[in-house]
Amino acid sequence: MSQQLTASAEMVNQKVKFIGTSGSNPEVTLDYTPPIGDGEGYTSLELFLVSLASCAGTAIASLLRKMRKDVSGLKINVKGNRKEQPPTGFEKIHMEIILKSKDALESDVKKAISLSEESICPVWNMIKHNVEISSEYEIVRV
Amino acid sequence: MSQQLTASAEMVNQKVKFIGTSGSNPEVTLDYTPPIGDGEGYTSLELFLVSLASCAGTAIASLLRKMRKDVSGLKINVKGNRKEQPPTGFEKIHMEIILKSKDALESDVKKAISLSEESICPVWNMIKHNVEISSEYEIVRV
Repeated sequence: MSQQLTASAEMVNQKVKFIGTSGSNPEVTLDYTPPIGDGEGYTSLELFLVSLASCAGTAIASLLRKMRKDVSGLKINVKGNRKEQPPTGFEKIHMEIILKSKDALESDVKKAISLSEESICPVWNMIKHNVEISSEYEIVRV
Repeated sequence: MSQQLTASAEMVNQKVKFIGTSGSNPEVTLDYTPPIGDGEGYTSLELFLVSLASCAGTAIASLLRKMRKDVSGLKINVKGNRKEQPPTGFEKIHMEIILKSKDALESDVKKAISLSEESICPVWNMIKHNVEISSEYEIVRV
């Protein structure tokens, strides 16, 4: 990946609907809930959670494969609880990691999660000390 | 917006392509650059930048309207410089804010940017103290 990344978001109605994009990727529609917006797209916080889930997933899959473990499937479900007072960012985020693997052990998964948090997943790292993140995992044998 | 938000990302090939979603929003395809991935989607960091740009845009537009200022158009371009060592999150992010307005003054825009950073935009707030963020703005009269 290049050292510098760019993205943009442009307002497309008279409320707060935005079309976002980066590079040659398809556009993403963002909006806020009524009455400020019309609720016709991702909120910024929902899109943030997708970014975090995929970042954690990419890091965990890559690390397990480096350990020569099978990663046949991987799903990350994230759940974020917002603060009650503005700025209403997440106070806590919980990640549920469901791995399909024929040979990964619990200790491998624990190690991959811990390394992802400490040093591999950049999105996770950028919110460190600001948001409390917890995780649980399940290994499904294939 | 509800207090708890959820999202998920599921691996859909044998590399690191993920399909992400949240609520009833359309799916977003994420992938990493070769050789780890095939480069067929947003990287998590690109999607993060889209989230940040739309969050800042929503906050700035809402604040200016609260000040009874016209917001006919708003575009946010963001540029992030990654760290050289893992975790390769952003070291610095620069935001370019292009506002179309018939009456917003420079002082209004400065105030809206500063309030967004301090207390309105949750994505901006979650990376506070971890990433250096700078901004510039342009007001286009309509």
